Amino acid sequence: MIFVLLSLYINAQEQTQDALFIKNIYNQVLTEAACYDWLTDLSTDIGGRLAGSEGADAAVLFTKSIMDTLGLDKVSLQECTVPHWERGAAEMVSATLQNGSSKSLNATALGNSPGGKAKAEIVEVFTLEEVEKLGRRGIEGKIVFFNRPMDPTQIRTFNAYGGAVDQRGRGPAMASRFGAVGTVVRSMTTKTDNVPHTGVTIFGEDPPTPAVAVSTMDADWLSAELKKGKVEISIETHCQTLPDKMSHNVIGEIVGSTYPEKIILVGGHLDSWDIGGGAHDDGSGCVHAMQVLHTLKALNYEPRHTIRCVLFMNEENGLGGATAYAEASNKKGEFHMAALESDAGGFTPRGFSVDGDNSIFAEKFKAMTDWLPLLEPFGLSLSKGGGGADINPLKSQKGVLIGFRPDSQRYFDFHHTADDTIEAVNQRELEMGAAAITSLIYLIDTHGL
Amino acid sequence: MIFVLLSLYINAQEQTQDALFIKNIYNQVLTEAACYDWLTDLSTDIGGRLAGSEGADAAVLFTKSIMDTLGLDKVSLQECTVPHWERGAAEMVSATLQNGSSKSLNATALGNSPGGKAKAEIVEVFTLEEVEKLGRRGIEGKIVFFNRPMDPTQIRTFNAYGGAVDQRGRGPAMASRFGAVGTVVRSMTTKTDNVPHTGVTIFGEDPPTPAVAVSTMDADWLSAELKKGKVEISIETHCQTLPDKMSHNVIGEIVGSTYPEKIILVGGHLDSWDIGGGAHDDGSGCVHAMQVLHTLKALNYEPRHTIRCVLFMNEENGLGGATAYAEASNKKGEFHMAALESDAGGFTPRGFSVDGDNSIFAEKFKAMTDWLPLLEPFGLSLSKGGGGADINPLKSQKGVLIGFRPDSQRYFDFHHTADDTIEAVNQRELEMGAAAITSLIYLIDTHGL
Repeated sequence: MIFVLLSLYINAQEQTQDALFIKNIYNQVLTEAACYDWLTDLSTDIGGRLAGSEGADAAVLFTKSIMDTLGLDKVSLQECTVPHWERGAAEMVSATLQNGSSKSLNATALGNSPGGKAKAEIVEVFTLEEVEKLGRRGIEGKIVFFNRPMDPTQIRTFNAYGGAVDQRGRGPAMASRFGAVGTVVRSMTTKTDNVPHTGVTIFGEDPPTPAVAVSTMDADWLSAELKKGKVEISIETHCQTLPDKMSHNVIGEIVGSTYPEKIILVGGHLDSWDIGGGAHDDGSGCVHAMQVLHTLKALNYEPRHTIRCVLFMNEENGLGGATAYAEASNKKGEFHMAALESDAGGFTPRGFSVDGDNSIFAEKFKAMTDWLPLLEPFGLSLSKGGGGADINPLKSQKGVLIGFRPDSQRYFDFHHTADDTIEAVNQRELEMGAAAITSLIYLIDTHGL
Repeated sequence: MIFVLLSLYINAQEQTQDALFIKNIYNQVLTEAACYDWLTDLSTDIGGRLAGSEGADAAVLFTKSIMDTLGLDKVSLQECTVPHWERGAAEMVSATLQNGSSKSLNATALGNSPGGKAKAEIVEVFTLEEVEKLGRRGIEGKIVFFNRPMDPTQIRTFNAYGGAVDQRGRGPAMASRFGAVGTVVRSMTTKTDNVPHTGVTIFGEDPPTPAVAVSTMDADWLSAELKKGKVEISIETHCQTLPDKMSHNVIGEIVGSTYPEKIILVGGHLDSWDIGGGAHDDGSGCVHAMQVLHTLKALNYEPRHTIRCVLFMNEENGLGGATAYAEASNKKGEFHMAALESDAGGFTPRGFSVDGDNSIFAEKFKAMTDWLPLLEPFGLSLSKGGGGADINPLKSQKGVLIGFRPDSQRYFDFHHTADDTIEAVNQRELEMGAAAITSLIYLIDTHGL
């Protein structure tokens, strides 16, 4: 009985200490954070930074130069091989109706699209299966127009994205397989506007043909015109795929005082699409991760485990950075006790999704739910769900993978567009994210996992 | 035992039915809502609509014309007396330093400020108590500058507002009482920018003197200059207070099929400050409330209780509409089983705060928490806290008062400024709010309270 009371007492003391430290984290971040200024520079001065581009090289140097000022134990660059796709001159896409009138469309070439010209009648489809069903007879010589909207009734917009993005990722390959000369994809957003959204498409063994996304307004217009009669589309892209290049992950760490061999990773991806500033995707994640170290240092916190910030290169079109990182880590026999990725934007935090190998997940998730009384006052919850594309390769190390989950309502207004700029990011919302992530990293470090 | 099992079974059935209906509400709102279009018209075509202004009259007619199309059982206007303050020509505020150089400040007159000119040395203070302490000797003939910032470390920004707004609401009266010739107040926002925030100030028995808010950047600049030497401020306002006017609340309702005498109120306030479009404050609340009726009608829902939408006039500077509404309601012996106000902006919903007379609160709040499993999948929680300024006078009827609580991080970027326009409102976030409120109104109606 005395033991139970004592342990309850100790537990209450710990919770109070944790609550105080977390409040200090929020106070520090909301008054002294640098993350918004870093993001302004990254997304404005450097801007678009697709792997293999000059922007990506500049982003590597810029973020390393920030980490060099944080008083870390180690800062380094890690080599990785990345593809080198370039958009070239602006794409031109137009539609011609049967009456001869034509209209220029708001379009953007998809990543991996080849350069080229295509001019043909369009066939509207809503699924990849429809293309298979129409077969070579229905598709050959045509331009396929994938027009299934993201489902606006999904509460979490990422679920709507997941339910539509096969059209962009695999639609052009499927169309090409049956002889299409090009592909037009409805932009991945629930918003009705004139902003086209790019993103990667994968041709694999299928012959690459010009592939573009058009704005949702233009997609709706095309669909309406197709109900009246045939529509011919003309596509001209100037993209090219050049030889692979060497690029870098940027890594900084504070070595753990007690368990230096157990790593807590916090990261985001440094590359972004070329047409915007990559402010939400994923500049926010990068400055979140750096802000974690900045804040812990400012609070003179000495972590028991090694806390490592990793800015991964090439998430958008190849995962070259993530692959190199996991390979090197496995080779060294490292153990990532936890890895957290922020890659869902710089919006108000709602919580974290937790993932992990089946052999450890249930126990670790339960341990984390003990922290909920400390997280809920800040509007944070825990759910089961994916960690992130860059940290997934670490799953085999049997640590916990964590995805940062901010509010998702505005994310696909900006995702992969020219509008993903610093103006789309609210400073307080960004900082609240940094504070939330730092708080969870603190709990993991203090209590182990 | 059989009874317990049966009641568990019925309970589970009810929860499933409720879950289905709530999902239908979200589906309907996220695909068919009109609230964003209504808000665009209200905040853009009509724009600013302070009580007593032409804009307010236009807003009454516009929202009544919308309610007339919703197939309600009754739509009416309710007379109320409102003050009539006018800003007149733009205020001019400048600062002159000891070296003779001067700078024009980003300023806005506070509601109830008289017109007039004042030119005097400024005295910086951080609390009302400081003014009392300085007394007539330190204040007479001066302009008082209230410069206590909103606390950025508050997680909910409304708490930060609550901790600073006494300077705007009562600061000018306090300054005048001790002989100040005018007052300058730091704008109520945690953001550092050049946007001044207006809002009401109350002189009461104290002599009215020109009172303005300056942007946080100008407040910081003034504070820095004061550390170097004296600063003289010149204020010129052109405001006037005219005789009270007649205005209107706008009311529409669906009469309850079973309990027509029990009222569930959902509302917002129709007036806004004159310098912006009142998009978040409180156009969002008005279109939320109308969207509730629109959605229930679209779903052919026949409420058991009377569901009444009330758009209150004059929340910003007098509560004339709220007072008239409560008086008339009490006179008729009405019972508001629940009253919900949306007056915290059109951002992503986080939940509801619940209030009520001590004699009923604990029991009613507990009953509502039974609904949490139905609300939490949509990111909604329940907390104890205020209902809203317009519904507070109904507390004596001993029903439940509910405040809609959206995410608050961006609210004070726009509150009472020229930037509170439709561009500051995200359509999905606004619609999610309407769906959340409709869901709670549905639960109250279905299960009673």
